[in-house]
Amino acid sequence: MIDELIERLKIGDRKAVARLITLVENDEEKAREIVKKIYPLTGNAYIVGITGPPGAGKSSLLDKLIKEARKEGLVVGVIAIDPTSPFTGGALLGDRIRMQRHATDPGVFIRSMATRGSLGGLAKATNDAIKVLDAYGCDVIFVETVGVGQVEVDIVKTADTVVLVTVPGLGDDVQAIKAGLMEIADIFVLNKADKEGADATYFELTLTLDLERDKWEKLGWRPPIVETVATTGKGIKELWNEIKRHKEFLERSGRLEEKRRKRVEEEIKTIVSGLIARKVEMQIEKGELNDLIREVLSKKVDPYTAADLVMKNVLGT
Amino acid sequence: MIDELIERLKIGDRKAVARLITLVENDEEKAREIVKKIYPLTGNAYIVGITGPPGAGKSSLLDKLIKEARKEGLVVGVIAIDPTSPFTGGALLGDRIRMQRHATDPGVFIRSMATRGSLGGLAKATNDAIKVLDAYGCDVIFVETVGVGQVEVDIVKTADTVVLVTVPGLGDDVQAIKAGLMEIADIFVLNKADKEGADATYFELTLTLDLERDKWEKLGWRPPIVETVATTGKGIKELWNEIKRHKEFLERSGRLEEKRRKRVEEEIKTIVSGLIARKVEMQIEKGELNDLIREVLSKKVDPYTAADLVMKNVLGT
Repeated sequence: MIDELIERLKIGDRKAVARLITLVENDEEKAREIVKKIYPLTGNAYIVGITGPPGAGKSSLLDKLIKEARKEGLVVGVIAIDPTSPFTGGALLGDRIRMQRHATDPGVFIRSMATRGSLGGLAKATNDAIKVLDAYGCDVIFVETVGVGQVEVDIVKTADTVVLVTVPGLGDDVQAIKAGLMEIADIFVLNKADKEGADATYFELTLTLDLERDKWEKLGWRPPIVETVATTGKGIKELWNEIKRHKEFLERSGRLEEKRRKRVEEEIKTIVSGLIARKVEMQIEKGELNDLIREVLSKKVDPYTAADLVMKNVLGT
Repeated sequence: MIDELIERLKIGDRKAVARLITLVENDEEKAREIVKKIYPLTGNAYIVGITGPPGAGKSSLLDKLIKEARKEGLVVGVIAIDPTSPFTGGALLGDRIRMQRHATDPGVFIRSMATRGSLGGLAKATNDAIKVLDAYGCDVIFVETVGVGQVEVDIVKTADTVVLVTVPGLGDDVQAIKAGLMEIADIFVLNKADKEGADATYFELTLTLDLERDKWEKLGWRPPIVETVATTGKGIKELWNEIKRHKEFLERSGRLEEKRRKRVEEEIKTIVSGLIARKVEMQIEKGELNDLIREVLSKKVDPYTAADLVMKNVLGT
């Protein structure tokens, strides 16, 4: 069945893409088989991470970016990671629906992902889905996550280009962002740039970037700030150009290779951790750790010593 | 040094608490040593998780809950987990400062935590910090996280009582929350209950809970909805009483034991995954995986096969 789906994927069958992503998401063994088989077909896609706080207009922006990429005839994939939170779901759903107007365009494939059970499950599922879209022939794959949550930020970090979307009027944000944001963003977007307070936010962002002037000089890339109004399309062309300019920079400087190497390292770590976590889960399910857990509960054994014993057990099998 | 700190912890030295938490956060080996030594002193604290979207007023609510607990003479610990996001940091910081007015009260210990490097690092650091506060003699420990992000939600899930804070006017949220929220909340708080739209939100929440009537009956606990206005203190007493009522329910029904068993299982899994991830990281740092990563990059070996090889390597050492 998988071989047939992969054959259909190769000839551009969208339904096969959807099926394969569902399989890599939900079936551990099949994910492994599928990735092994499609892996030689991958490596063409450029990965763009889009992140930012809820309400920054990421999905509307993405909607417009898809159009830009399509104008150039590129095949576009989108993986939209839904926050675990029940709360912000509402607004996102609306945006997702808006994005789905591209659904009839065979050159666009959009997929939503929600939290997978175990630790790191979301990262693994996203990696695998990216591979399916890459093998399908996507030239660019946008990965959208909310910029809150350790796993969610870790996922977006591994993209080739990371676009950080912010909006005016987030209050004290600029003070707080300095540290975290410098590390991950290649391009800043100030969305809703027609809103009151946009100029002040732009100015503050510039000042913040100025503080790290030496770093940018050494790196050879200073993150630009692009002002956009996603609803009217203002600034989108410019943003798309900045993404392409960053891609060229990465290619020219050899940093793309470095980034991709880092991504492979992260991916291997994610898979190994997942395999081990599952082994431990299986031992728990089989009741093999019942005595040990009882001793931990009665404070006779501490959790670290218990973990060492489990390690030995897992390592021994 | 650690022995001395633990001796000082036992006699209620707050500085020792702070030092020990810093150590478990930042030093893997010391975390292990500290937890081993203090573990027999733990098990007294009751853990209350407070979660909800940014802007729901969690910190203000917590500020008032601390007061209630202090009125009863309880020793209170607070672990406030800062979202990874640069963005929401601002507002939170303000609330944190407000909470810090308890800092002069020797019966209250407040600690902020930010994302730890590797996958699951935040969960491990939180577990360990809880143990330090527990050993210190905290009767109740509040763990506050934003309700977005896989790791963040996983952390709050392991609390004895999970309080989910929502506010009116989050739009389509109720549709989206049904699935996720039912699983983790023991008590709902509708904060800012004096705001327009509060009645409608209350009504919708009630309807949503009604859908799962059978589940609550079987469980013996239907999550109550408490309306609060954190800024004036309205409803806080009631919320505190509901937390105590839930604690009694858990004790009476034997579910507390079950929850704590589950927490130990999760903790062991977290430690084991962390140990393995670190082993892989060390192999990468030493360059031992260079050839393998090169083969993955050149598409000769897929990531799953590479992970298997790394597993064998790690297992072999």
